[in-house]
Amino acid sequence: MPIARIDIPHGKPAAYGRTVADVVYETLRAVLNVPENDRFQIVSQHQVGDGLIIDPTYLGIERSADALIVQITLSEGRSVELKQAFYKTLADNLHDRIGLRREDLMINLVEVKKENWSFGNGIAQYV
Amino acid sequence: MPIARIDIPHGKPAAYGRTVADVVYETLRAVLNVPENDRFQIVSQHQVGDGLIIDPTYLGIERSADALIVQITLSEGRSVELKQAFYKTLADNLHDRIGLRREDLMINLVEVKKENWSFGNGIAQYV
Amino acid sequence: MPIARIDIPHGKPAAYGRTVADVVYETLRAVLNVPENDRFQIVSQHQVGDGLIIDPTYLGIERSADALIVQITLSEGRSVELKQAFYKTLADNLHDRIGLRREDLMINLVEVKKENWSFGNGIAQYV
Repeated sequence: MPIARIDIPHGKPAAYGRTVADVVYETLRAVLNVPENDRFQIVSQHQVGDGLIIDPTYLGIERSADALIVQITLSEGRSVELKQAFYKTLADNLHDRIGLRREDLMINLVEVKKENWSFGNGIAQYV
Repeated sequence: MPIARIDIPHGKPAAYGRTVADVVYETLRAVLNVPENDRFQIVSQHQVGDGLIIDPTYLGIERSADALIVQITLSEGRSVELKQAFYKTLADNLHDRIGLRREDLMINLVEVKKENWSFGNGIAQYV
Repeated sequence: MPIARIDIPHGKPAAYGRTVADVVYETLRAVLNVPENDRFQIVSQHQVGDGLIIDPTYLGIERSADALIVQITLSEGRSVELKQAFYKTLADNLHDRIGLRREDLMINLVEVKKENWSFGNGIAQYV
């Protein structure tokens, strides 16, 4: 059910964005109890500084030109602890898989009601 | 008041995205009681599989390479029944107008407070 | 903490989008009490009429081909009065800095819980 908008720097290897998206999906599955195959993602590339503007020091975290943003719309109801586990695991997994510095991962969750989704056929499958 | 983000596959005819947007607007008008001319839309094209990643089978729905995502931010307060009618009518209308398979339409609604909009002149018109 | 998605017409001078983003950040700082360096923004250009579709008269406001959309995700809890001040000041500031007609500024706020952010290192810094 999540829609993930993944905004990454321009100029990375062809498979880079797709790999980030793979890891986001796998981590949603593993930590946030998202069902198998529940994968809807939009990956966009932007020129750093013009299209993707990320502060390099906010909260004392040193961010590089590799910094990216993962914004996920999902159904409401996950606990704070689950969200915290998701952030940590996603940072760890992206570090392991593509070498992303943990400082370079910005995550935001937008929560909506279960009735706010249609996955096809014009039906609200979660009602 | 809605802002509709419409993310479609790359490589469609020039008028395709605009027509999808026309149908989204018309269906919001007809079913969700959106006022005339209340139209604010962002249509983006993405390479399927790299930029637009949509599972081909989630919930047993067979999606094709034409699958697209319509994500709409709107004021809170519509009933579940109205949302369900919107999903069904949008799937029907896109099928009729551009031949989109009903399976290929993913819809998500994000609800906000009435005070969260300014339509120009720096004024919160709905307060 | 805000993520600002700024969608502007294609074909503006190179610095245009960045300047809009500067003004959005400065106005968030000045009016909505956003901390210094709390800046995360995504600026996208679109062909007017195809990618960026904005009604030219809704609510009696005459919009031009320069019209743009600023959609900001931020933590919940600002008062209506503060939001109204933000809309007015952003319209004034964009008018002063880049000559944007006040009619041409569409703003939308999406509010989320404080726990819904990670600014790096896989930590929910606001919990």
